[in-house]
Amino acid sequence: MHEPSSDVGLRTRKRVATRNAIERAAISLMLEHGYDKVTVDMICEASMVSQRTFFNYFGSKEGVIIGGPHEPTAEQIDAFVSTEGPGIVADLLELIVAAQLEQEPDLALLPSRRVVLQRHPQLMEAEMAKMGALEDRYIQIVLSRFRNQHRPGTPAQLEQEARMVVALASGVMRYLMHAWFAGSGEQAPTHLVRDAVDVLSRFTQNELALGED
Amino acid sequence: MHEPSSDVGLRTRKRVATRNAIERAAISLMLEHGYDKVTVDMICEASMVSQRTFFNYFGSKEGVIIGGPHEPTAEQIDAFVSTEGPGIVADLLELIVAAQLEQEPDLALLPSRRVVLQRHPQLMEAEMAKMGALEDRYIQIVLSRFRNQHRPGTPAQLEQEARMVVALASGVMRYLMHAWFAGSGEQAPTHLVRDAVDVLSRFTQNELALGED
Repeated sequence: MHEPSSDVGLRTRKRVATRNAIERAAISLMLEHGYDKVTVDMICEASMVSQRTFFNYFGSKEGVIIGGPHEPTAEQIDAFVSTEGPGIVADLLELIVAAQLEQEPDLALLPSRRVVLQRHPQLMEAEMAKMGALEDRYIQIVLSRFRNQHRPGTPAQLEQEARMVVALASGVMRYLMHAWFAGSGEQAPTHLVRDAVDVLSRFTQNELALGED
Repeated sequence: MHEPSSDVGLRTRKRVATRNAIERAAISLMLEHGYDKVTVDMICEASMVSQRTFFNYFGSKEGVIIGGPHEPTAEQIDAFVSTEGPGIVADLLELIVAAQLEQEPDLALLPSRRVVLQRHPQLMEAEMAKMGALEDRYIQIVLSRFRNQHRPGTPAQLEQEARMVVALASGVMRYLMHAWFAGSGEQAPTHLVRDAVDVLSRFTQNELALGED
C-alpha cells in the first residue's frame, strides 16, 4: 500500500513542477516581449515541454495568464455546505483560498502576472469574466448552505444575502492580498488567512459589544 | 436672506451642469477616437467651454476619466466619527456613497467611463492609485471613530480592524455596483444603498441567530 501512494505523491509533485515551470517561462517572456509577441512555441521552448503538454495544462496562450476556474472540489464544497453554525464569511474565505491553492500555484508569480494583465485590456476583460463566473458559482454554493441551514427568507431574499456573503468575502480577499503584498510574500498563505479570520472575528466581537451598551 | 441662498443654489446647479457637459463630451469623444487621439481642445470645442474652465474643473485630460479624490466633507466625516454605536460598515458605506454623490456625477456615464478605463492600461493604473490613496484616507477616518469609541486594542490591532472595515465596505460597494448595473441604472443610488444596508443587517441578524442555537 505504501509504494503506490508515494507514486501518486511523486506524480502530483511532478505535475505541479511542470505547470509552474511553464507558467514562469510564459510570464517572464510576456514581461520581456509583450503578450502579443509571445507564441506558444516560444513558451514551450523556454520551458522544455511539448506543445501537447502545454495545451494539456493550459488549453491556450491566454490560459497561462487567466488560469483555470479554480473551483473547489466536491469534498471541499460538501464540508462548507454542511457546516451549520455562523461565520459563513470566514468559512467561504477559507474555501476560496483552499480552491486557489489546490493546484499549488507559484505565488511569487502573482505580481508579474498582474503586470501582464494590466498591460493588456483584452486579458483584463477575460480575467473579469472569469471572476464574474466564479462569483456566480460561489453564490450558488452559499445558497446550498442556506438551504441546508433552513435559513428563513424568500428565495429572492436568500439570493440577496448569498450575494452579500460573496461580496463581503471578496472584500476580505482584498484585505488578504494587501497583507500578502505588504509582507512581501514571505508568510504562508494559510497563516495569512488565519490572521484575516482573526481580525474579522475580533472586529465582529467589538461591534457586538458596542451594540450591548 | 432668500435671494442670496437661491443664487447659491443656481450657481451650484450651473457648476454641476457645466461639469457634466464637459465629462459627457470627453467620454463620448474618447469612445469614438480613443483616449490618446482626443485633445483638451477637442473636448472644449465639443462642450463649448474655454480651456481655462476645463482646467478649473478637471486639472488635466486624465482628470476627466480618473476624477477627483471625492473625499467626504469635514461635516460628513465629523458625523461619521462621532457615531458611537455598532454598524460601522453600513455607516462607512453611506459616507463613501455620499462623498461620491456630493458632486452630483452623471451616473449614466459610469459604464462608458469604465470602457475607456479598461481600454487604457495607463489610465487603469492611475485609477487604481487613486483608489489606493482613497482607501488609506478611509482607514484613517475609521481609526478616528475607533479612538472616539475608546475601542480596545493595540494601535496595530486597531489598524488591522480599520483596514478590515474598509475592505468589507469595498465588498459591499461591489454588491451595490452589481445591483445598480442589474437595475440598468434606473433606481436612485440612495435607494440602492438603503437596500444594501438592509440586506447586510438581515444577513447579520440571521448569522447571530445561528450563533444562539
